[in-house]
This record gives sequence, C-alpha cells and structure tokens, in this order.
Amino acid sequence: MLEGSDGSGKSTLAEKLKTYYDHLGRKVLLTREPGGTQLGEEIRTMILKNTEIEMDPRTEALLYAASRAEHVFKKIKPAVEEGYVVICERYILSSLAYQGYGRDLGPDQVLKINEFATGRFQPDVTFYLKVGWEKTLHRKTSMGGDRLELAGDTFFKKVQEGYQALEKTKGIQVIDASQSPEEIYRECIKILEEGNV
Amino acid sequence: MLEGSDGSGKSTLAEKLKTYYDHLGRKVLLTREPGGTQLGEEIRTMILKNTEIEMDPRTEALLYAASRAEHVFKKIKPAVEEGYVVICERYILSSLAYQGYGRDLGPDQVLKINEFATGRFQPDVTFYLKVGWEKTLHRKTSMGGDRLELAGDTFFKKVQEGYQALEKTKGIQVIDASQSPEEIYRECIKILEEGNV
Repeated sequence: MLEGSDGSGKSTLAEKLKTYYDHLGRKVLLTREPGGTQLGEEIRTMILKNTEIEMDPRTEALLYAASRAEHVFKKIKPAVEEGYVVICERYILSSLAYQGYGRDLGPDQVLKINEFATGRFQPDVTFYLKVGWEKTLHRKTSMGGDRLELAGDTFFKKVQEGYQALEKTKGIQVIDASQSPEEIYRECIKILEEGNV
Repeated sequence: MLEGSDGSGKSTLAEKLKTYYDHLGRKVLLTREPGGTQLGEEIRTMILKNTEIEMDPRTEALLYAASRAEHVFKKIKPAVEEGYVVICERYILSSLAYQGYGRDLGPDQVLKINEFATGRFQPDVTFYLKVGWEKTLHRKTSMGGDRLELAGDTFFKKVQEGYQALEKTKGIQVIDASQSPEEIYRECIKILEEGNV
C-alpha cells in the first residue's frame, strides 16, 4: 500500500512499481480507493459532494470504511488470490490520519471499524511518503477544493500530526518524499528486494 | 425504541404512544430510521436499490451504521436535549438481527460498529414486538420486494432466530404482537408507567 498526503508522489511511485513488476513478468493490479467498484464510487461521491451538509465525523468514518470494504472484498482480495501483485494508493492509515486524528475520533476507534470493514486484511508492506507540513499546505492551496480540502488548515495540521504519530506503526516504511521520484522509487525497491516482498 | 419485523405493528404503536404523550402535554418526536436526514435517506436508498450488485455484508452493515449515526446526532439527540420524548422505529437491535444474524456477521462485531456510530447512545426502553416466524413470512410475501425482502426465506429465518437470541438483551421489553393493537398499546403504557419512563 502507498500512503501519504495528496501531492506526495504516490501515483508516480505506483506507476514505477507497476513497471518494475511488469518487467518481472508478474500480473499487477494498480488501484486506489475507492477502487472503481460501482458502490465504492457512489459512496465516495456522497462523502465528497456534501460540502454544505455538516456530516457527522462518525458518519464520514463509517462511509469510508464501507467504501473500503467493497474495494477489499470485491477487488483487492480476489486479485491477490489470482496471483496478482496489488499496488494500492491509500488504505486504513489514511482513515486513521484523516478521521482518527483530523476529525478527533481517535485512531483506536477508527482502527476497529476498519478491521471490521477489511476482515483485518493487511498489506505485505506500506510505504508512507512523508512530506513536510508546509509543503502539503502549499500543494493543497494550488488545487481545486472538495469537501476535505475545504475543511481548513487546522484539520490538515491535525492530519499531519496524525501521520507523524502513526509513522511508527508496525509495517510502515517511512520514505522521505522530498527526494526525486527516481530516488523514492529506488528506496522502495531496495526495501522490497531486501524483504523479499 | 420500537423494534420488530415488518408488519409487526410498530407504526400503529408509535402513533398511539405519540397521542399518549401529546395528551400529557409533552413535546413528541416520532421518527424512524433513516429518519429523514438528507444523507441518511441517500444512504438508505443506496442500500435498498442495489439489488443487482452483490453488496458485501460488511458494507451493508457499515452503511446502516453510517445512516444511524446521522439520525442519532442530527435528529434524536438534539430533540432529547430540547426535552422531546423521542419515539423511534428501529435502532441497533435491527442491525444485530439483520446484519449480525441474517448476514452471519455475528452480533458482537455489529454491536461494536454501532456503538461507534451512536456514541453508545441508548434508549430508555425498547419494545420488541414479537411475531411468529410463519406470520412474518406471510406478511412479507403479500408486500412488494426491495433488496432485503428479495434475500429469501433463509435470510429471514436467520433474522428471526437472531431476534429470538436477542430477546434477553438488557432493556428489551418483549411484547406479544399477536395481540390487538389496543392490547399492545396498553401493555406498553403499563410498562412505561411502572418504570416512570
């Protein structure tokens, strides 16, 4: 799984990793939440369009978890069972940072509903592309705004602090995202090859 | 809260209880899940319309919980805080019976996500209108079919068994729904008056 703020370079890395596994002759599924399942997309649309309604944070967390359940059970797990290498942008860590910390629900509670949503399905490795807070903010303001993006600086600061607290979670590989895309890619490949992932 | 299968007489009882509290000069909110919150309705529509897509049971449970979170935090709790008597058709017990037992997710897991969804908000009393299994089935087949209704007899048998297992839950008052609406109402009022609810 690839994690990190918007603009941290997840998509570029995902493409590079796909090419790497393609060359090894592996079947590769490149996906990102909500992953193109019809229902998952509908749920995501519902979350992001509701800028006017003040959605309860619990509702938001449950909707993300519902969307994730569809993605895992309809797309990721079947692909893994068919022998695919699955490269996915964003997973539970995003919810822990955004809903657990950003929305003050607490990471433990959010983890529990996501363990339910995914049946505790875990990736072999998670790369967290770490960007400094100022850089994230700069990138956000130069982009269009959806519901999450409009939630303001305080929210994003809390998300960033959340990521910082979550860095030490077992299985998370922190990658300095200020490096060039090529350097990021090489660091990840090194980790993958050393770990025989 | 009023619980029980479709056709067990919840709506009739709800109206009668409303009249009772009206006469006592109390402010009354009569509601039912998803409770008329815009987002709650959207979520419910999403669940019920998806007859073709084989939705993952976890997704269904999480969507119901999301809809419930909106209902509790946008409608029920604010009303209680303003001094309203809230009479609500269906709550967590329905999810325990339908998703926990009917969909084989297990009541404990479903309870956990609903405790998250509602912040453990509990009603003062829950009346469970108990109908025999054959009667429930008969009523279902004489009505139109939505997604849940189309899920077949096995599903409803498991839901019914779920309700049976849940009857002994703390705070649940089991009412024999084969009585006349007037008898049902009187039994409930007796319980309310004795318990000073």
